Amino acid sequence: MNSEQEESSVLTQAEQARQAFQAIRRATTEQKNNFLNKLADLLEENIDTIISENKRDLESTNEITKAMLRRLELTKTGIQSIARGVRDIAKAEDPVGSIIKAWVRPNGLRIKRVRVPIGVIAVIFESRPNVIIDVAALCIKSGNAVIVRGGKEAMYSNNILARYITQALRDAGLPENAAQQLQDRRYEAISELVQLEDYLDLVIPRGRESLIKAVSEKARVPVMKHMRGLCHLYIDKDADIDKAIKIAVNAKTSNPSTCNTIETILVHKDIADSSLPKLLSLLREKKVEIRGCSQTCTYSSACVAATETDWATEYLDLIISIKVVESYEAGVKHIQKYSSGLTDSIVTENIQTAEEFIKDINSATVLVNASNRFTDGGEFGLGAEIGISTSSIHMRGPMGLEDLTVPRYVVMGSGQIRE
Amino acid sequence: MNSEQEESSVLTQAEQARQAFQAIRRATTEQKNNFLNKLADLLEENIDTIISENKRDLESTNEITKAMLRRLELTKTGIQSIARGVRDIAKAEDPVGSIIKAWVRPNGLRIKRVRVPIGVIAVIFESRPNVIIDVAALCIKSGNAVIVRGGKEAMYSNNILARYITQALRDAGLPENAAQQLQDRRYEAISELVQLEDYLDLVIPRGRESLIKAVSEKARVPVMKHMRGLCHLYIDKDADIDKAIKIAVNAKTSNPSTCNTIETILVHKDIADSSLPKLLSLLREKKVEIRGCSQTCTYSSACVAATETDWATEYLDLIISIKVVESYEAGVKHIQKYSSGLTDSIVTENIQTAEEFIKDINSATVLVNASNRFTDGGEFGLGAEIGISTSSIHMRGPMGLEDLTVPRYVVMGSGQIRE
Repeated sequence: MNSEQEESSVLTQAEQARQAFQAIRRATTEQKNNFLNKLADLLEENIDTIISENKRDLESTNEITKAMLRRLELTKTGIQSIARGVRDIAKAEDPVGSIIKAWVRPNGLRIKRVRVPIGVIAVIFESRPNVIIDVAALCIKSGNAVIVRGGKEAMYSNNILARYITQALRDAGLPENAAQQLQDRRYEAISELVQLEDYLDLVIPRGRESLIKAVSEKARVPVMKHMRGLCHLYIDKDADIDKAIKIAVNAKTSNPSTCNTIETILVHKDIADSSLPKLLSLLREKKVEIRGCSQTCTYSSACVAATETDWATEYLDLIISIKVVESYEAGVKHIQKYSSGLTDSIVTENIQTAEEFIKDINSATVLVNASNRFTDGGEFGLGAEIGISTSSIHMRGPMGLEDLTVPRYVVMGSGQIRE
Repeated sequence: MNSEQEESSVLTQAEQARQAFQAIRRATTEQKNNFLNKLADLLEENIDTIISENKRDLESTNEITKAMLRRLELTKTGIQSIARGVRDIAKAEDPVGSIIKAWVRPNGLRIKRVRVPIGVIAVIFESRPNVIIDVAALCIKSGNAVIVRGGKEAMYSNNILARYITQALRDAGLPENAAQQLQDRRYEAISELVQLEDYLDLVIPRGRESLIKAVSEKARVPVMKHMRGLCHLYIDKDADIDKAIKIAVNAKTSNPSTCNTIETILVHKDIADSSLPKLLSLLREKKVEIRGCSQTCTYSSACVAATETDWATEYLDLIISIKVVESYEAGVKHIQKYSSGLTDSIVTENIQTAEEFIKDINSATVLVNASNRFTDGGEFGLGAEIGISTSSIHMRGPMGLEDLTVPRYVVMGSGQIRE
């Protein structure tokens, strides 16, 4: 295939997606739910086939790490849980057409702000093959067309799952092109796709920061960023120490490879003596490597001196950086400087300090007296999420079904004209 | 000034705006309203000065057309009306901190979706010098910092108005850098600014399509497009003819240079004989040039044959293209092909056809039995608008105060950890 043909194939897919969007945005809730239930059926009926295709991915990956294996591998219970997730999306309320606000003007015009689908969405992701199912299910239910591009390490898994998506669309009488894999496997195909502003409405890159940066640079359509999580926990002088320790250990160790895991703990100096010795020893029990400021290191022989780099690093691993701060303000300043804006939290019994923190910290999600690990669509009760937005517009935080729609205006009159 | 210095000055302004944002996003409603009322005072106290600076713009513009003059000229009543608009924004509810939704999870976590400011916004605009005041007032009230860049044809007017903005910020104890004019007057300064993704959160270009395209191409931050308005009115076979004619004439002639003016009327063939002769004669009375399909031209000797170009042209003038269509579907197809997505309308007494039209037409605003000219923040009751969005995400249609904020999550717990 020469380069010109490949380019036109990206364009062709975008055109097809645009056309499919005209149908999918008008599809009834019943049709969309038929698709979802059919897809869940297909996943459950074909567990063995999916596992064997997934094995081909696992076998073709050289030097696979444990973390990679955990992300890539599809097990029987894993596939069942993906199917259950799809059925949950079928049960969720259809956001399309829902009225956000309605009012009547003095001249009798009835004005409504109503949710409509966004359009054609490109989702670029890596590793986890469950993503292709979640993304297709969420986009179709919200009336959007979607073009997905997964990582090559999950190619066989994505291909078989994409086949079931197509079949379920067909069975539900919906256009197959409403959810497609980008066929062109060249890296440049991504750049070409995200420049097609006449066909594409939004791109959601999920993965390494370098991928997100590359997409932002090329894109001529809005990019909803799902940035890395350099997340903080600040333990205030008025914290309940038991809560603080429990939350800190949970927020670091319950699943260290996730983006909502904390990387840095800031401790107010007044509470350092009474909290850090116990916290450090519990973290050590969980095999967490500790990189601390000089005061932190006085509490544990296992503590290594933190460098400037540590404060700016998302470990995604059993490593934590800890700093004792002079004041609330110093803690806030540190977070404002280093946070990636995904999720930061405070532990305090002082409601005024909590309110200040909520105002001071501009992150997508701010938590008071709760583990940062709750920052997740499922934990928030949104159902499946398409990611966690750290963008400045549209919405911030876990992005669910409703967030794949956009408000527009519908105006009903009886012959009014503007004077 | 050499190029390097100029570049650093764009960067410096962006850094200053970012810093000012940290203060302005936390400013109280009272402080922000003090700024607005002070600004309105300054405008009213300095009408003569403003008019004399505006005269310098009018005098330095060669070959000024009537339309340009109308957009550029500031009169006493015009300035008073701008000041009144600023006081209205002071009276409007502060969107920052408003709770969109709140719920409690089974584990006791209290989750809120709350409005926060977007961040640092760049607004690039042309001509009308009132824009700089509206933009500053809306952005500051919604807790955003803003960098504006107006056209050089309004330089003296913008400079004097910017001076009052700065003074009002200072008087209200708010950072002056919260609303700045871009100092670097080179065209490339715009490209440099919209690439500063670490400082800027959003760019809103208002003006010629070429400007919007250029900004979209360069931008590494989201662009809220305020695209041209190629707007349609479809007169259905079940239309009330009197309403249809009244709406058509109003939507074309009440202010032909605005983006919500219609450029094309589509008439169902069953109603052409009974509506077009009268409609054409009324349009002719209002000095509207008519470019019609062959059937349309049978009703008036003043009708000129429309070419393919006409269907794709935003005249912004007393010119209209008119087409008789075979069916509802043909009308919808025409709109789907040529509409710029700003605002399209239908006249029909058939509620089912109206509902179909609302679903079929994906434009930012769809109207039934009302003039497209109502598509405006003020007419919708939003107060001042920063523009009319034709973007796919965030929101579509007239963009008011609330639309300059974004939802994020605040979570209140009592020590919860994730199992």
